[in-house]
Parts: sequence; structure tokens; C-alpha cells
Amino acid sequence: MAYQPLKQMIEAADKAITEEDFDSLMAFYADDATLVIKPGLIATGKEQIHKAFFAIAEHFNHSLVVKQGAMHVIHGGNTALVIMETVLETVDAAGVASRMSRRATYVFREDPAGKWLCVIDNSYGTELLGTM
Amino acid sequence: MAYQPLKQMIEAADKAITEEDFDSLMAFYADDATLVIKPGLIATGKEQIHKAFFAIAEHFNHSLVVKQGAMHVIHGGNTALVIMETVLETVDAAGVASRMSRRATYVFREDPAGKWLCVIDNSYGTELLGTM
Repeated sequence: MAYQPLKQMIEAADKAITEEDFDSLMAFYADDATLVIKPGLIATGKEQIHKAFFAIAEHFNHSLVVKQGAMHVIHGGNTALVIMETVLETVDAAGVASRMSRRATYVFREDPAGKWLCVIDNSYGTELLGTM
Repeated sequence: MAYQPLKQMIEAADKAITEEDFDSLMAFYADDATLVIKPGLIATGKEQIHKAFFAIAEHFNHSLVVKQGAMHVIHGGNTALVIMETVLETVDAAGVASRMSRRATYVFREDPAGKWLCVIDNSYGTELLGTM
């Protein structure tokens, strides 16, 4: 699979997060996907992931805007590891804007019908090692 | 799958690299696995990966010793993302010792028989974004 379709999938997912359209967002994930909510806390399966994004939206005061930076894709058979700069812009309750940049890691898997879905979403990348 | 078997697989692979036992090392990889040799250069499939490890051994003057540090595993269905500190110790032709630490990323996949194999081996982790 080429680079471009995975990039478009991530852009669409980040747009859905920004718009808090979590029903559309679920199309990004495999049924057995895992999301790293924060170091030490994961959500597995669409029901848990959907709830997690509601909580994340609340946490960021419904101000979260997610954008993408540089991207690198490594394919191995029916899986792909995506390494991507993710930019999170937020505004707190006092109106103070913040901007965070993370080097995220995603694992995609091709299902038997040839459809690629995200099976692991870890926006913390290798920073998990420094936080656990 | 638990944390421990993946840890043991990586330890066995690093031992095989250190001992330049590349035939044994191939048991670690899926047939369609991809190894990031260095940023911008990959090997796909056991034949290419086997050759790459010969070249890596030459490059490091047959002195390479690979050790493991902290490890973190995220499972999603039949895949797992492993984030692991990898320590590379080398001695150059002049006898000068070096020590490098990387935050590596591996993707493992469970095959239909229930066997886990490495399908993506990217020892550069998210550093790829800074080098491409």
C-alpha cells in the first residue's frame, strides 16, 4: 500500500477528532484496535475508544485541534508502521492557548478484504519509555 | 500474548546478532518482514535481511554487541507494537569502543498457528522523522 492513502486516513481521523465527530472517527479503527490514552492507560475496542475520545475532548475543554507534520511509513507484509509528527493545539478554560508536538506511532493492518485499518494508535511514540 | 515471550524473542535475536548467527536470527522474522537498515534503506524478506546483517556486521568491524534496556508493549488484536531501548556497543578498527542507545520500535504479528513473529524491525524508532 502506498504512503498517500494512509496519510489521508490519518488526516480524516484528526479532522474527526477536531470536530468531535467520534462516530465517523470509529471508521479509522479495527474492531480490536488499541488506543494509548496516556502512558499507562489504554482503550481497546471501538466502545472503549469512543468513550476515551469523549473524555479527551472534555479534558481539553473542547478546544483540541489536531494537525499533522512529517510522516514516515514502513511496510511489512499486511502491516504498516507509521511514524508521524502530530501537533495538538488547545485552549484552556482561562483562554490560554498551548501547542504540543508529538512523534506518534500507528500500526495499520490490512484486513482480508484489502482494507487498511488502524490497529494500534500510540501518539506518545517512544516517549512511553521515558514516562513509565 | 504476554510481555515476557516477546522480550525473550528480542533477547534471543539480539544474542544471535551479537554472535553473528544470522541463520538462527532468521527465526525471529516473518517471511514478509521489513528491517530498517538505516534511514532511507530497508530490507524486505529473509534473504535481504540476512544479507543486511552480514553488511551490518562488517560495518561494525565484527564487534557489535546488542543489549536491551526498558521495554513497553502495546497489543492490538493479532499485532503488537514493542518500544524498547536498544544498546549497541562497538569497537572500531583502532580499538576505540563506542556505545549507542536507541529507542527501537518493532511490530509483531501473530500468524494463524498462534506463533508471533517480527514483521517490522525499526531500531531508529521515531528518530526517522529527524533524519529523512
